[in-house]
Parts: sequence; structure tokens; C-alpha cells
Amino acid sequence: MKWRTTVGDEQEILTEAIAKAMQRADMVIATGGLGPTNDDITKKAICRYFKRPLILYDNILKKIEKRFKQRGIEMPAINQNQALLPQGATFIDNEIGSAVGISIEEDGKLFVAIPGVPSEMKPMIEGWVTDEIKKRSGGVVTIHRKLRTVGIIESALYEKVADLIDPKKQKREAKISVAFLPSWRGVDLRLTVTTNNEELGKKNIEVLEGKVIERIGKYLYGRGEVNLPDVVGELLKSERMTLAVAESCTGGLLGKMITDVSGSSDYFLGGVIAYSNELKMKLLSVPQIILEKYGAVSKECASYMAEGVIQALGANIGVSITGIAGPTGGTEEKPVGLVYVGLAVPGDTKVKECRFGDHRENNRDRSAVTALDMVRRYLAGIE
Amino acid sequence: MKWRTTVGDEQEILTEAIAKAMQRADMVIATGGLGPTNDDITKKAICRYFKRPLILYDNILKKIEKRFKQRGIEMPAINQNQALLPQGATFIDNEIGSAVGISIEEDGKLFVAIPGVPSEMKPMIEGWVTDEIKKRSGGVVTIHRKLRTVGIIESALYEKVADLIDPKKQKREAKISVAFLPSWRGVDLRLTVTTNNEELGKKNIEVLEGKVIERIGKYLYGRGEVNLPDVVGELLKSERMTLAVAESCTGGLLGKMITDVSGSSDYFLGGVIAYSNELKMKLLSVPQIILEKYGAVSKECASYMAEGVIQALGANIGVSITGIAGPTGGTEEKPVGLVYVGLAVPGDTKVKECRFGDHRENNRDRSAVTALDMVRRYLAGIE
Repeated sequence: MKWRTTVGDEQEILTEAIAKAMQRADMVIATGGLGPTNDDITKKAICRYFKRPLILYDNILKKIEKRFKQRGIEMPAINQNQALLPQGATFIDNEIGSAVGISIEEDGKLFVAIPGVPSEMKPMIEGWVTDEIKKRSGGVVTIHRKLRTVGIIESALYEKVADLIDPKKQKREAKISVAFLPSWRGVDLRLTVTTNNEELGKKNIEVLEGKVIERIGKYLYGRGEVNLPDVVGELLKSERMTLAVAESCTGGLLGKMITDVSGSSDYFLGGVIAYSNELKMKLLSVPQIILEKYGAVSKECASYMAEGVIQALGANIGVSITGIAGPTGGTEEKPVGLVYVGLAVPGDTKVKECRFGDHRENNRDRSAVTALDMVRRYLAGIE
Repeated sequence: MKWRTTVGDEQEILTEAIAKAMQRADMVIATGGLGPTNDDITKKAICRYFKRPLILYDNILKKIEKRFKQRGIEMPAINQNQALLPQGATFIDNEIGSAVGISIEEDGKLFVAIPGVPSEMKPMIEGWVTDEIKKRSGGVVTIHRKLRTVGIIESALYEKVADLIDPKKQKREAKISVAFLPSWRGVDLRLTVTTNNEELGKKNIEVLEGKVIERIGKYLYGRGEVNLPDVVGELLKSERMTLAVAESCTGGLLGKMITDVSGSSDYFLGGVIAYSNELKMKLLSVPQIILEKYGAVSKECASYMAEGVIQALGANIGVSITGIAGPTGGTEEKPVGLVYVGLAVPGDTKVKECRFGDHRENNRDRSAVTALDMVRRYLAGIE
């Protein structure tokens, strides 16, 4: 992907953007604006640029009607618009929604329009569009590798590997470029090579990947499209252990992330969202004296919460989170961003003190990720 | 915003993109690529386009060093790069991270570069950038209104208001355009007018907004930037009622959404994530016979879960979610996407049967939104 343009819902500007992109590239992909309402103008711009009329496709109309019938919803009349499509185009099936993808080939260049709703767009990109790109690439391949890390900041990670990834130190052919992609949930390293010597490209990228992995060690939790909750799930499954959560400031986020994984019921029993102090006592057996003496945001409380949830739910591992997510509720002694994350197994409990920042969503995300990483490290025998 | 271009981390292409944008517009905003690592090339492209050198700004270096010190992290040497900035530029403070924003004015046109990390970008856009746009707009104003709906699909909503929003039926001056913005969490209507007659624009948009609101009635949950969990929270506060959740297939997502709201501890006690049947019995007192006779995904189980969580947690209102999120686990009788959402208050319980689709994330999101909307409707006395 070399160039991406985004414009508003104005037909003239969109038509101009399509024209410029068709000059610039051999393949152009447009997303969005294929819905039934009058602000969905992509089809009109396509017809204008390619000088083709919209015609009604009966077979597509029948599919749309069938979809509504299956959902048990009466089809609003305007959804008929979605069967009005440019003459002579090729259509791409939509498994999720009622807007089909549109493709038009002209002068050896390919134009594709697909819906903007991510859940509809993604299968089309990964299926039909990817297949077309492969067909048309003329032997030039791009190879990616993704290394996913957690628990280390971008610049520290960079310093660990800077000498390895310097393009000046690489051979001239099939050089690997490396991008750092930071988010609150960790930093990804993306290795890329574009070459017409696929074999050499693969070899170079694998050699570099191996060296990088050696340097980043315990911070690496996965390669490719794997997520931290997947990794934790696989470890739990292979150790035949069950997990339960006790959440205060994250309010359910940790459980949500664990159950993002289909099949998580194999190892995740459930948890307790103990937002109030009363519930910490009632459901997790945190002693009142602990709350009075140390407060709910304390190492001691996190420890009791993790132990309490093992007891209450009968799990092998319990994790707990208690902290001040903010933006309010901080004090000098216990500022916003102070979070305790606990991990308990029968007979052994540890608690990590974290000092994040002022941002509520950030603090909650990082708390949940820290809890998952503690489970990962425990199961993988790290530290 | 008329035109947006996205390019990869290639200096030449980025420089070209800046050049084209500066031709096209009076103000250009670039985001991203201001980090310390060698794939962060925006500054280099700026220097190339504006023909200025990078120089070290001591005052900015001191601020970056101070930030690391406060976080208790040793500053990696490469973060010094972030004090190397184009000569003669104006800088925009970053409250969250170490990359400052950069602004350069030339030939009456303004170029601005800000970090791409959303939490750092947003305050700069809402503060400095918005102020500059206002200063430079020459009396032309754009007025937006956002109406947020839940529980109705885009095309059905469109049909309710189609005649009202037809631009042909509006007066020539200060016409209102309406966009429909659907997501799994509901459909937003965005009303927009751009005019140099601010008074007329405001009047027109308010009149149309009033008419639209009349038509969409109970589906409207808020105006402007308010979210459904905020609305539910305000209603709970004003009724002085407390809420607890019992989640199965959503695994904590509903609690997470409720606690996205700062201050939710005023009305949210907590909840139980009962992912396994054992926990539905143990923590929520769902009778074993109910699970055997009707299964965990049933109207009856949802009903017991909502009642059980009121009992266990001592809340005024309990909501429950049990369903088959998918992609596996469906049967002919109980397909993926079948979800029961329950709401209980002492002496009264209702359960809604939902049939969503095949997509796990979508099903979980829509389940949680349905639960929130049931609480909203209950408290607002709708239906």
C-alpha cells in the first residue's frame, strides 16, 4: 500500500480522488459508502468516473431479501438500492452485510470498492482482494513478520536491536525494513522485505527475526497475528489449569479480554467484579481490617482479592486488579494511575505495583495487559 | 476536512504528499511519525519540503528528560532525537507523551504535524489546532449536531426521516446535510451546516434537529458526544438506584462498558462473570434443574441470573446476559447469535430474546448494548 486518500461524502471530490488514484496505481481499493442511504455516494462516483449506468441486478436483490428474511426483519424499501450496481462490474460476495463489493477492470488496471464496516471489509480484503493482488504481482513478493512484545517501551526495545536492523549493515539485495508499532497493549516489531527473490527474502527475514528474538527474550509473547489472551489461553490449556479474575478498577475489562478468545470456556471459569468495598469483603473475603488499614488500592488488598477469587470460584490461578483509574480519585500518596495487580496460586501470591499515567482508558488497558502478562510469565516460567 | 492522504514510512512519498496537500489547502495537518525510532520520518520530510535544518532545542530536551524522571524510567538515549526539530518552527505542547507538535507558517498557509498516538493527538486537535482553525476561518462556520440512537437499523431510521432531510426541500441558504453513521453499538445521525450566516445556520439546524427527534423518539438515547453508558449512569444517579451485572457470554464486557464512565462507582456495585454453569449455580443461585431442563442459554436462566445478582450483591437493578457468542457452540435449535438479556428489579423480571449474527465480537457488543438499553428504557419509563 503506497498511497491512501480519504475524502468526505462529496461526489465530486470522491470522483477526483478515484481518478487520481487510477493514474497513480495499477490497483485501487475504495472502502465505504456502499450503504443504502443518500450519503452513500461511492457507487455514483464510480459510475461517473467509469461512465457506466447503474442497473438493477435481480440475483443480488434476491440475496438481500433472503438475508433480511433470515434475520426476521422486514426489509426497508431503501435496501433495494443495494441491488442497483454499475453495469458490467464483477461483484464480490458479502457474508456479513447486504452491500456487495464491486470490481471493474479497465486498461489493465483494477478498481475495487468494498464496504467500510470493518467486519464486512475484512473478509473481502483477506479473501478476494488478496487473491487478486497475488495474481497481479508479477513475481514481486512482500514478506512480513510480526513480533509482539509486552512490558517494554518502544525506545528501550529499539535500543536493544538498533544495530541489528540498521539497513546500512545489510546486504544490498532483499534488505529488511523494521517498523515499531507501539500501543497501550504493547509494542509490535514488523519486519518487511519486498523482493523478486522470494527465497533470499525469506532466508534474510528469518535470520534477522531469529537474532531479534534472541535480544528481546522475555518481552516477546507471540509472533504473527496472535494476541496476548490467545497466548495465555494456550498456556493454560497445555498446563490444564483454570483461571478466575477479581476486578476492581478494570470493571470487567480483563474478563472481556480473556473471553475475546473463542473456546476460552475451556480454562476461564469467570470472575467477580468487585467495584465497591462491600463486595470485596462479601464476595472475595477481603478482611475489613485490611481495607481500613491499607485501603482498597493496596498490595494487601490485591493479594487478598487474588486469593479470595481462587477460593470462591475454585480456580487454579486467580488474578486481581485494584487501582485508581482516574481521572479523579487520586491523592498525593495514591495518585491516579497507581494500580496493584495480583496473581495467586494455592500457597503462593505475588503482587506487582504499577504506576501508569493520568488517562483512564490507558490505565485500565495497561492494568489488564499487566495481569495477562503476569499469568503468561507464571505459566512460561519466566523470572 | 476535505481531503486526507495516508502514506507509508517512506520519506520521498511523504514529502510528495506534504507538497500536494500544501498546494491543495490553506491548512495541512500531518499526524504520526514523530517518535524517536528510525521509522519515524515525518520530521525529515518536513525539513526536506520546507528546506530547513533540524536543530537541537535545549528547552524541549529538558522537558523530555523531566517526563522520564517523573515516570521513574531511565531515558533511553534515542529519546534525545525528539528534541531535534525543524528550525524556526512553532511547537505545540504534548501533555501525554514526549513528542511535541510542530507548526510552520509559510506564504499564509499553515502546516501542522502532531503525534499519531490517539491519546496524544486528541488534546492537540481539540486545543491548539481547533483554536487555529477558528482564527483562520474568516467568518465561515461549520455547525454539527449529533443524534445517537440504539435499537434500530440504519435503513429503518433513514425511512423515518427521509422526507425531512431531503436537501431539495430545504431553503437555499444554510442547508443541512445529514449523515448516517452506523456501528454495532447503534446508529448516529450527524447534522451539518457550513455557512457564513451563523445565526441562520444555527436556527435551521435546531429546527431540523427538533423534527428529527420527534420522529425517532424512543430510539434516541443522547445528543452530542454522550455515550449510552453515560446516559444510563445519569439515569441511575438521578433515580438513586444501584446496578449489578451477571455476565456469561460477554465475559465482563458489560461491566467494562459501565465502568468506562468515571464516577460509575456512585451507582455500579459490581457483578459476577459466570462463564461456567457451576458458577451460575454457585454465585447466582441458578437452580440446577433450570440448567438441565432449559440449558444455560435460555430465557429461564437469564431470568434467574438477573434475580440472583440482585440477591447476591444487594443491588436495586440486576441485568444478565447469556448466549452463544460463537463462532462455535451453536446448534440448530440454539444457533450462534442467540442471546437472552434479562433485567430484574425486586418483584419484576423481564427477558429479551435476541438473534444476532455469526460474528463473536459483534454478538458480544450488541448483547452489552441491549442490556444497557434495557436499563435505559426501564429507568426512562419507555414501553
